[in-house]
Amino acid sequence: MKAIFLIHCPDQTGIISSVTSFIHRGGGNITYLDQHVDEEAGVFFMRLEVDFSEGSLPADEIENRFEKDLAGPYAMEWSMHLREKRPRMALFVSKYNHCLYDLLIRYSTGELKAEIPLIISNHEDLRHIAEQFGIPYHFIPVSRETKAKAEEKQLALLRDNKVDFVVLARYMQIVTEKLIAEYPSRIINIHHSFLPAFAGAKPYHAAFNRGVKIIGATSHYVTEELDAGPIIEQDITRVSHVHKVNDFIEKGRDLEKLVLSRAVQLHVNRKTMVYNNKTVIFT
Amino acid sequence: MKAIFLIHCPDQTGIISSVTSFIHRGGGNITYLDQHVDEEAGVFFMRLEVDFSEGSLPADEIENRFEKDLAGPYAMEWSMHLREKRPRMALFVSKYNHCLYDLLIRYSTGELKAEIPLIISNHEDLRHIAEQFGIPYHFIPVSRETKAKAEEKQLALLRDNKVDFVVLARYMQIVTEKLIAEYPSRIINIHHSFLPAFAGAKPYHAAFNRGVKIIGATSHYVTEELDAGPIIEQDITRVSHVHKVNDFIEKGRDLEKLVLSRAVQLHVNRKTMVYNNKTVIFT
Amino acid sequence: MKAIFLIHCPDQTGIISSVTSFIHRGGGNITYLDQHVDEEAGVFFMRLEVDFSEGSLPADEIENRFEKDLAGPYAMEWSMHLREKRPRMALFVSKYNHCLYDLLIRYSTGELKAEIPLIISNHEDLRHIAEQFGIPYHFIPVSRETKAKAEEKQLALLRDNKVDFVVLARYMQIVTEKLIAEYPSRIINIHHSFLPAFAGAKPYHAAFNRGVKIIGATSHYVTEELDAGPIIEQDITRVSHVHKVNDFIEKGRDLEKLVLSRAVQLHVNRKTMVYNNKTVIFT
Amino acid sequence: MKAIFLIHCPDQTGIISSVTSFIHRGGGNITYLDQHVDEEAGVFFMRLEVDFSEGSLPADEIENRFEKDLAGPYAMEWSMHLREKRPRMALFVSKYNHCLYDLLIRYSTGELKAEIPLIISNHEDLRHIAEQFGIPYHFIPVSRETKAKAEEKQLALLRDNKVDFVVLARYMQIVTEKLIAEYPSRIINIHHSFLPAFAGAKPYHAAFNRGVKIIGATSHYVTEELDAGPIIEQDITRVSHVHKVNDFIEKGRDLEKLVLSRAVQLHVNRKTMVYNNKTVIFT
Repeated sequence: MKAIFLIHCPDQTGIISSVTSFIHRGGGNITYLDQHVDEEAGVFFMRLEVDFSEGSLPADEIENRFEKDLAGPYAMEWSMHLREKRPRMALFVSKYNHCLYDLLIRYSTGELKAEIPLIISNHEDLRHIAEQFGIPYHFIPVSRETKAKAEEKQLALLRDNKVDFVVLARYMQIVTEKLIAEYPSRIINIHHSFLPAFAGAKPYHAAFNRGVKIIGATSHYVTEELDAGPIIEQDITRVSHVHKVNDFIEKGRDLEKLVLSRAVQLHVNRKTMVYNNKTVIFT
Repeated sequence: MKAIFLIHCPDQTGIISSVTSFIHRGGGNITYLDQHVDEEAGVFFMRLEVDFSEGSLPADEIENRFEKDLAGPYAMEWSMHLREKRPRMALFVSKYNHCLYDLLIRYSTGELKAEIPLIISNHEDLRHIAEQFGIPYHFIPVSRETKAKAEEKQLALLRDNKVDFVVLARYMQIVTEKLIAEYPSRIINIHHSFLPAFAGAKPYHAAFNRGVKIIGATSHYVTEELDAGPIIEQDITRVSHVHKVNDFIEKGRDLEKLVLSRAVQLHVNRKTMVYNNKTVIFT
Repeated sequence: MKAIFLIHCPDQTGIISSVTSFIHRGGGNITYLDQHVDEEAGVFFMRLEVDFSEGSLPADEIENRFEKDLAGPYAMEWSMHLREKRPRMALFVSKYNHCLYDLLIRYSTGELKAEIPLIISNHEDLRHIAEQFGIPYHFIPVSRETKAKAEEKQLALLRDNKVDFVVLARYMQIVTEKLIAEYPSRIINIHHSFLPAFAGAKPYHAAFNRGVKIIGATSHYVTEELDAGPIIEQDITRVSHVHKVNDFIEKGRDLEKLVLSRAVQLHVNRKTMVYNNKTVIFT
Repeated sequence: MKAIFLIHCPDQTGIISSVTSFIHRGGGNITYLDQHVDEEAGVFFMRLEVDFSEGSLPADEIENRFEKDLAGPYAMEWSMHLREKRPRMALFVSKYNHCLYDLLIRYSTGELKAEIPLIISNHEDLRHIAEQFGIPYHFIPVSRETKAKAEEKQLALLRDNKVDFVVLARYMQIVTEKLIAEYPSRIINIHHSFLPAFAGAKPYHAAFNRGVKIIGATSHYVTEELDAGPIIEQDITRVSHVHKVNDFIEKGRDLEKLVLSRAVQLHVNRKTMVYNNKTVIFT
């Protein structure tokens, strides 16, 4: 049994020693440990990968003891994830296909170790791609009047499909507080600029007008404030005066795909933690 | 005689043919030609490097004929620069030494083909570096009350030293309209962020607080609006949650040096043109 | 009518002037011009994009006159390509699907302006992908004994389909002299290393064993010497001690896709010229 | 008292728990822990930063107990370094000044936390730079006949100055087995190529001739085989057909400076471990 532990708590001496001794006593072999202390905030973060040998306690018993022996005394927020259990991911898309294709190919080749029980879209345009890869595609149109109802339908689908997290793969609608509240730090967006520059609509046009020499893309967890959530991953590419807005858009597509897929992989592999609107990204 | 021509004018057919024929008739061999059309603005840009053979006309006569035969008919704004004439550059500094050191070393090794007749500073801190490299160092303190007078002194020094352009090598004062008006598109600043993100004061602190995964530096021509002038060069480096503000500052120093020196080299080698608050950067 | 001219010839004065005057007289408007002089070799290279107005001469007449007036006198090797005529590209694949998917998606969205009349493979594994995108898939098995015959079949298919150039999208066979002779500087390969490091088989394993901190991918034209042809494009990504060979392979896939697609785009857009086993890549 | 521990030993369960418990019992607070397991080799690596509180045992007593309680039982190779003790670094140079300048500026500003008791050179050219920064400069000419004697002088100087490690800052001589044997994994070289491509002499010329689109620099520990030691850091920059060998050299200088200074910083901050001719580089 392979498990991943994510832990954060107020910093104090002895935490690493206590946790690693607990694992050792429980028959676990630590194959990966990384930790971080946010000195300003006084918070300790740790990520562990552990191999529990055949005769170890069952997962829920380990969880019970961890809660009692460690989480209580150290005031930890923590989670334990079994490797064999793949997180369930919903994709929200609109009309752009590049991020959708990219994620579905990684999924179909086994590179992306998640389940994708459904795709939700406010347009019919990309249904054929969903069908190519055999994923159910739900068309839920959204207008100003129907927004609340549409969201109810979305949430019902997410619940019915036991979705763990949501990826907005160039979904061209602003998701609402209700969805965010139900999936805190579990909705991943790709924004087509180097945030915080050019938040909001039409970032490539804004970048072109400003005459920047580098454009970027940013993947972040969605919070109520638009394009202001914790950043998971960013990357950039060079542009010059020879490039028009359409060139920015074309170069940007490759960036968006890569940055979003890296962020999704980090989330799926439990390498992200959120604190104070920032992320800790483990290696 | 080696000369560089920089030209821009309303776009129309036949410009390249007319200019290259002019050069050819005048005994010049074009060793480099690059051009760009800004289709939105309808403006044509061109940069030429030309070798004029021994028996060619003198430079001022070439200029006269160019003005009459081409610049007039095509409504060109243009300039011709002789390779052997090095532009004269003034350095403005405050307390940070890294950009100053970097430029002076490139100057002293001959890599930077400019003259540096003087360094101006509002502090005495970096005088010893100026002395190491044998460059006159002028201490002109600046306070709110003395700002106007200090600027007069600066301008007088620039004029006396026949300065062609000014480099703000982490000069921690805002230069005023008067200086900008006298050196339009000829004052180069280095800003320690990936503009337009984090304009203004303390960009590394702002970047840290936002939790970005990449920091940058931007070199631009100074205009009246703070940190909003035409961008010459930008570059970035990766950061992560393990880096504190001081790490951002330290990594940023290497970025600032490189980005500023590249921008200065582009300017010195006449590879920049400014139009509509953007730059055309020739290769 | 939009046309692209690619020209190279012994360097001498007046070429640009002669060519641009020719275009101007012929009713063409030059929308792009870039040139390069290889001073060591004494060779001049030029790329032009030209808009010929409605009343211009027909393409073949322009070609005739160009040959007579310019190509002869200047000893030029040159070609003229009409924008509306898309080059025809054959894809060779084996078992890896990532480069194939990447190119087919760019093709199907119109980003890649080529025709793809066929895919040839020595395995059946990727037929379903060809079918997803509606491209004929030809299975031609290759063994040591059948290699010559297989190549005949390949060549026949290429001729029948009027193929202009070939892309080896992780084709795991060495193509032979005969194919190379028929498609000189028109077979594009992707090699999964930063050439010339790690030429030949298993470059990721070799890179891992050497303990490099950066891995790369290289796209090049195929010549008879293995992995030694003119380089079109390269890119890299960082690795560290935490990455195993499989991580190299996974990170490498994203590199390979990007580098190959950029090289193919450069070729399709007539931005590459080959000389002395090197490339000139126009912007 | 702040200390850094570097440990490697055969991998087995319980090491992290044992080490962290030892530190905790000894009154230490772990402020950083990173570990790595080389699964192929079956070797465990760990780096710890520890704050020992006021009343803790003295450093040598901690060392004694660590040796007895942990190093023995686990067959560890290990070292403990006190933060306040700066390593002593000798610089070897020839005629190129850029790496020397770069390191001396970082040293003089306090960014590089090492002592530099001396500079050794086989030329007099850079003496004035050493004098600018007040570092003793020893001129030891090297010819084929005097090589052995010169090396004796070098070694005597290194011993007299209690030098911990040596940096070859573009030193244009091959150091001999004797020096390497005395400073195993403690001589840092900068090679001006992306190793293993273009090992040996004139790498920029070789890169130019091959027509690469990217050039690099590599910093590595020196071993007996030329340019084949464990790589500490690499970086790259783009080039194109417009760049001549001299442009490669000029762009390369900036790369060499950065790559060498990063490698030296990693070594000084005890973030490097060597095993099987590779490095583990801690963050």
